[in-house]
Amino acid sequence: MLGWTCPAPLRDQPRVVMGHGGGGAMSAELVEHVFAPAFGGEVLAQLGDAAAVTLGGARLAFSTDSYVVRPLFFPGGCIGDLAVNGTVNDLAMCGARAAYLSCAVILEEGVEMAVVARVAQAIGAAARAAGVEVATGDTKVVESGHGDGIYLNTAGIGLVPAGVDLRPQRVVPGDVVIVSGPIGAHGVAVMSVREGLEFGVEVVSDTAPLGSLVAAMLEVTPDLHVLRDPTRGGLAASLNEIAGAARVGVVVNERAVPVPPAVANACAVLGLDPMYVANEGRLVAFVPRGHADAVLAAMRAHPQGAGAAVVGEAVADHPGMVVARTGLGGTRVVDLPVGEQLPRIC
Amino acid sequence: MLGWTCPAPLRDQPRVVMGHGGGGAMSAELVEHVFAPAFGGEVLAQLGDAAAVTLGGARLAFSTDSYVVRPLFFPGGCIGDLAVNGTVNDLAMCGARAAYLSCAVILEEGVEMAVVARVAQAIGAAARAAGVEVATGDTKVVESGHGDGIYLNTAGIGLVPAGVDLRPQRVVPGDVVIVSGPIGAHGVAVMSVREGLEFGVEVVSDTAPLGSLVAAMLEVTPDLHVLRDPTRGGLAASLNEIAGAARVGVVVNERAVPVPPAVANACAVLGLDPMYVANEGRLVAFVPRGHADAVLAAMRAHPQGAGAAVVGEAVADHPGMVVARTGLGGTRVVDLPVGEQLPRIC
Repeated sequence: MLGWTCPAPLRDQPRVVMGHGGGGAMSAELVEHVFAPAFGGEVLAQLGDAAAVTLGGARLAFSTDSYVVRPLFFPGGCIGDLAVNGTVNDLAMCGARAAYLSCAVILEEGVEMAVVARVAQAIGAAARAAGVEVATGDTKVVESGHGDGIYLNTAGIGLVPAGVDLRPQRVVPGDVVIVSGPIGAHGVAVMSVREGLEFGVEVVSDTAPLGSLVAAMLEVTPDLHVLRDPTRGGLAASLNEIAGAARVGVVVNERAVPVPPAVANACAVLGLDPMYVANEGRLVAFVPRGHADAVLAAMRAHPQGAGAAVVGEAVADHPGMVVARTGLGGTRVVDLPVGEQLPRIC
Repeated sequence: MLGWTCPAPLRDQPRVVMGHGGGGAMSAELVEHVFAPAFGGEVLAQLGDAAAVTLGGARLAFSTDSYVVRPLFFPGGCIGDLAVNGTVNDLAMCGARAAYLSCAVILEEGVEMAVVARVAQAIGAAARAAGVEVATGDTKVVESGHGDGIYLNTAGIGLVPAGVDLRPQRVVPGDVVIVSGPIGAHGVAVMSVREGLEFGVEVVSDTAPLGSLVAAMLEVTPDLHVLRDPTRGGLAASLNEIAGAARVGVVVNERAVPVPPAVANACAVLGLDPMYVANEGRLVAFVPRGHADAVLAAMRAHPQGAGAAVVGEAVADHPGMVVARTGLGGTRVVDLPVGEQLPRIC
């Protein structure tokens, strides 16, 4: 492009590669050096799962995600479930119950109408399950060979309850780190069907809406510090983002992190670390120590949090760094992933 | 798909074709028979340019569009301008000033980072020009060959002013039909660069934000009846949608419809009717007759409405039908387009 050059900090990355969509360090660089400075908004600069904005006196959470998962259907769900639950969950990470979703569809010429209808019905069913209304939409069609059947985008808005202020900057040393259930199922479920792999037991995606779980947690106390849903880049990416933004260290007790045996087996075969595998129905919470037991109990009493577990804590040491205590008594650094070990997972 | 069949009303359309994305009758069928029944929302069923919802006591407009225009850059703009102005304009058609946008990007592996940066800067510049903040975003990457460089999606929210209620159902016979300026430039601009055509004078896209024009019109009176931005399917599609929903007839004085000479020439060469060509910075308004002169004057005093003109009226005859009075004293029916004469225009 005559007169247009690659931004200087990305000169070693003159073209987009798959890793730029992986939710790790390369994605962060693209946002930091290209999108955030160009868009220039103050809200965007906070880079949470959703934006917190005020409009007409209402405190709103506002979020969007596009979905390009391959294949469209996988054990436990399809692109339609992901598109609803993903945005519902981004809003939930602000403490908001999703009220309205938009749904925009990019169809590839030639895709079977029956497939479109099946995805549409999954979107409707997931929206009803999450208690959210699809209020507006859009359809575009691209020529055969220029898409993958269906790409979806949803955006969502919801009200943030009074007194709730979920931000990594509120995390302090001593906060207890809780995950809402076993990790890694979504990424392994998609990967197994895509690659035709079998691991004895079928691994089913964890895709689920988390709005009512978060509401149950906030009923214990509105004073949760931060929530994240560990999608692309997995739990490792979420913990690194929080540690970096909060300027605290995070220590994870590796043995306490729940990993289903079938996921662990699959990861061993594939050479993956479950900490880096995407989830679509899990959250990680940083909770003030005094509230941790009660919050954990409320989570375990909820269907989406039955497998919740304390997995670590925020510490004053090594700010910005996530360290895992391994089963053997040693420690290892849990880095922010660079690109994506499992592309097109959502 | 075993066990899944094409919805019965679309049995003659077992696969998606380009026309399903054209904004005409085929798009409407897809929404009516697949998406609306599956999603099931009451707000969606109203099918305006944007949804009007109430949240936390605030009356909000909420809208989304995806953008798949080819090529990415064209005379007068690029996909980034379209993505901002398109959603800003959808909100404006509810009477709302856009406050916050989401922006989700699907990148194709291999696209030059300089191209991504140029589009990002166009998004930022267009947002500043429209007075809207990009508050949240998302980036996905698909493999080389599975996209067209960049697809964008924006969603937007804005406040609907008190007393404003823009719906086709409010249109009554006698309403005056005003367009805000010459039509057809956007579609011809994109088509000319895509097909390498030249028409003597370069046709430049009309892409522009319409929020402040609408605000100026509402200052004259909040009692406008309906606004539409005639994008895909052009003025013909917008007028047909309004006539159908309002159960009124619409009569258009063909000679009064402003068409730039270069657009008229290009349409003659290409065999297109300017009434069906997409606009990205124009609106059509149905205005109570008593306010029409003052609204027209306010439009002409605004840079985005300098070329505004009265082009017709709503009538009690032929409800649901749009009829053009031709220059020769005859009449012709202006149908809803079926598919799309110019695909991938936005």
